[in-house]
Amino acid sequence: MDRSSVAVALAELLRGARYRPPTTHGRPVDLPGHFAGLVRIGRETLALTTDTVGTKVLLAEQLGRWEEVGEDIVGVNVNDLAAVGARPAALVDTILCDRPRPEVFRAIGRGLGRGLRAAECALLGGETAVVPDMVRGIDLGATALGFFPGGRKPVSGAGIRPGDQILGIPSSGPHANGFTLIRRLLRSGQVDLSAARPGGRVPVGRELLAPTRIYSRAADAVADDPGVRGLAHLSGGGVRNLVRLRPDVSFVLDRWPPVPGVFRWLQELGPVSEEEMFQTFNMGLGFAIVVRADRRTQVERRLERGGVRDARLIGRVERGAGVEVPKFGLRYAGYS
Amino acid sequence: MDRSSVAVALAELLRGARYRPPTTHGRPVDLPGHFAGLVRIGRETLALTTDTVGTKVLLAEQLGRWEEVGEDIVGVNVNDLAAVGARPAALVDTILCDRPRPEVFRAIGRGLGRGLRAAECALLGGETAVVPDMVRGIDLGATALGFFPGGRKPVSGAGIRPGDQILGIPSSGPHANGFTLIRRLLRSGQVDLSAARPGGRVPVGRELLAPTRIYSRAADAVADDPGVRGLAHLSGGGVRNLVRLRPDVSFVLDRWPPVPGVFRWLQELGPVSEEEMFQTFNMGLGFAIVVRADRRTQVERRLERGGVRDARLIGRVERGAGVEVPKFGLRYAGYS
Repeated sequence: MDRSSVAVALAELLRGARYRPPTTHGRPVDLPGHFAGLVRIGRETLALTTDTVGTKVLLAEQLGRWEEVGEDIVGVNVNDLAAVGARPAALVDTILCDRPRPEVFRAIGRGLGRGLRAAECALLGGETAVVPDMVRGIDLGATALGFFPGGRKPVSGAGIRPGDQILGIPSSGPHANGFTLIRRLLRSGQVDLSAARPGGRVPVGRELLAPTRIYSRAADAVADDPGVRGLAHLSGGGVRNLVRLRPDVSFVLDRWPPVPGVFRWLQELGPVSEEEMFQTFNMGLGFAIVVRADRRTQVERRLERGGVRDARLIGRVERGAGVEVPKFGLRYAGYS
Repeated sequence: MDRSSVAVALAELLRGARYRPPTTHGRPVDLPGHFAGLVRIGRETLALTTDTVGTKVLLAEQLGRWEEVGEDIVGVNVNDLAAVGARPAALVDTILCDRPRPEVFRAIGRGLGRGLRAAECALLGGETAVVPDMVRGIDLGATALGFFPGGRKPVSGAGIRPGDQILGIPSSGPHANGFTLIRRLLRSGQVDLSAARPGGRVPVGRELLAPTRIYSRAADAVADDPGVRGLAHLSGGGVRNLVRLRPDVSFVLDRWPPVPGVFRWLQELGPVSEEEMFQTFNMGLGFAIVVRADRRTQVERRLERGGVRDARLIGRVERGAGVEVPKFGLRYAGYS
C-alpha cells in the first residue's frame, strides 16, 4: 500500500467532515499524536478508539484458527486507550463476512471473551453483516470506549522533557501489525506454517498468530502517577509511534533488549532492512512509558503491583527530535 | 442471506464473549430490544451503537455517487441512539477499501460532514484500511457515542401500555436497508438507473440513494417528556422493530399513510409480497414515538418546536401481541 495516497485520500475525507457541534452535545478534547479521540460529557472525559485486526485474519483463515484474532479485536483497540491512560469500559464489535460459519464464530467469541477479561471490558453490542458481494472471508473490527477514573487526567505526552526515562513492556509477537508484509514473506519463502522455525518451539503459523498482548492493566496501574509523562502503543509504525507524542524531543532507545527470534527469522526471509523492520513491527516491545527520572522506581513498583513484572528501562529522552535505536544504527526523523 | 444461520453463528460468538467486568470499569445497563448498548460511567449513562451502510455502497459505486452513503454513515448509527433517547456526542468511522480514491473519499467526507451537522455530532476519529485482499470496493461503518443530558432517563419502551398512541415520522426513502433485495430487483428488471421511474421526479438511482433521514433532533426534542414511552428506529426489520420494544402488547398501525411510490415501484419489479415489503423496508416511516394518549398534543408541539413538522398519528397500542397494519392485511407475531 502506498502510504502517501492513503494520506491524500484521508485528508480529502476529513476536509468535508470537519464540524464542531454545540457544546450541549459534548466537548471534543484535542489530543494530538494519539489514535484515541476524546470527548468531555458532563464531568466525565471519554475516549474512543476504533481499529480492525486487518489482514492477520487471512493467516487465521489459512490455519483454520480463529481464537487468537478474536482476542486481537480487543487488544488492537484497548491498547490505543491505554496510550492515553484511559480505562476500558465497553467494546462493540463489527464482523463482516461472506457467510456465517458457526464453528468459526464460536472460536472468535472465545478469543473475544479472553480479550475482554484481560482488559476488564464489557461487550456492549455489535454488528454482524453477511455481505458476500463486498467481503472475502471475515473482517474483524471494533470500537472501544474508555474513561478516566477518579479525576485522572488523560496522559498526552505533552509534558515529556529531556532527562525523562523510557520503560518498555514486551510484546507477544507481531501482534496484529505488518501482516501484509508477513504474508508476502511467508509466500516468497514457501514457508511450512505447520513446522517450527529454527529456534522456535511451536509451529511458526501459531507463533505468528499469538494474540496481541493487552496493556490495559499496565497503563491503569501507572496513569495516576505524577511522574508518568507519556504512554505509547508500539503498533503499526513501531518505534516511530514515540515521535507522535512529541516531535520536538529525541527518544534515544539505547537499551533495546535482544530482538525476539521470530522477527529476525522474518527479516531473513526477505531480506528486510533493519529500518523497515523497526518501523513496521514492534520488534519485541509493544508498549512504552515515558517517566520522570526521579519517579522511575515508584512507577516500576506500580507496574509490579499491577502484575507487570517484565517492564525494563529501554532508553531516555534527550534534546533534539525523532527517535533512534543506536545499537542497530537506526534514526527516524518523524512518524511518517 | 439466511437469517437463522446468522443467528446461530452470532449466538455462538456471544456465548464465548460473555463477561461482566468489575464495577470499577463501568456498569453495563441492560436494555432489551434495542440496538444501542448502555453503560454507566460515573454519573453519566453512555450509549454506543455500531452499524455499517451495508450493500447500499454497491449502488453508490454503480452510480459513482458517494455523498449520500457518506451521510448514511451517520444516520444508520445516530438513529439507533435516537431510539433510546440518547443525544449524539461523537462518532468514529471505519472505512475499508480496496484502494484509496481521493475523489471518492472527498465525496464521502462531504456527506459525512452533512450527517454530522444534522445530528450535531463530532467526528472523533476513525480507521481507514486499504485491504484489497479482503474487501471489494468500499465498506462504510461507524460507531456513535450518545449520552443522556440533564438527568434524562433512557427511553426503553418498558412503560408502553395499551391505550398509548403511536406517532410516525416520514423517511426519505429506503434509507440504508434492503439493498441486497433492491439490487436484485433492479438487475432482474433491467432497470435504467439514469431514468426516472413512472411518477418519479429524479433518476431512480438517485432516488434510491437518498441519504437516511436523521431523527436525532426529533428524539432529543421529545425524550424528556414524561408522556414518551417508547421510540423506535424503523430500519431493517421495518415495522417489526416495534415488537422489540415490548413483545406483550399489540401495536395496531391503523393509520399508516400512503406508501411512497418508490416502494410500490420496487414491489412491482419483483413482485414482492406485502408482508416481505413491510418487514424489509420502512415503507415511508422511519421513526416511531409511542406516547401516552393524554400527552400526545404536548409531544407533537415539542416535535414542531424541534423543527419536525411532518409527524403524524399512525396507530395505537392494544392488548395482545405483535404488530399489525390492518389497511394492508398484515400481522407479524414477533421480530424474527
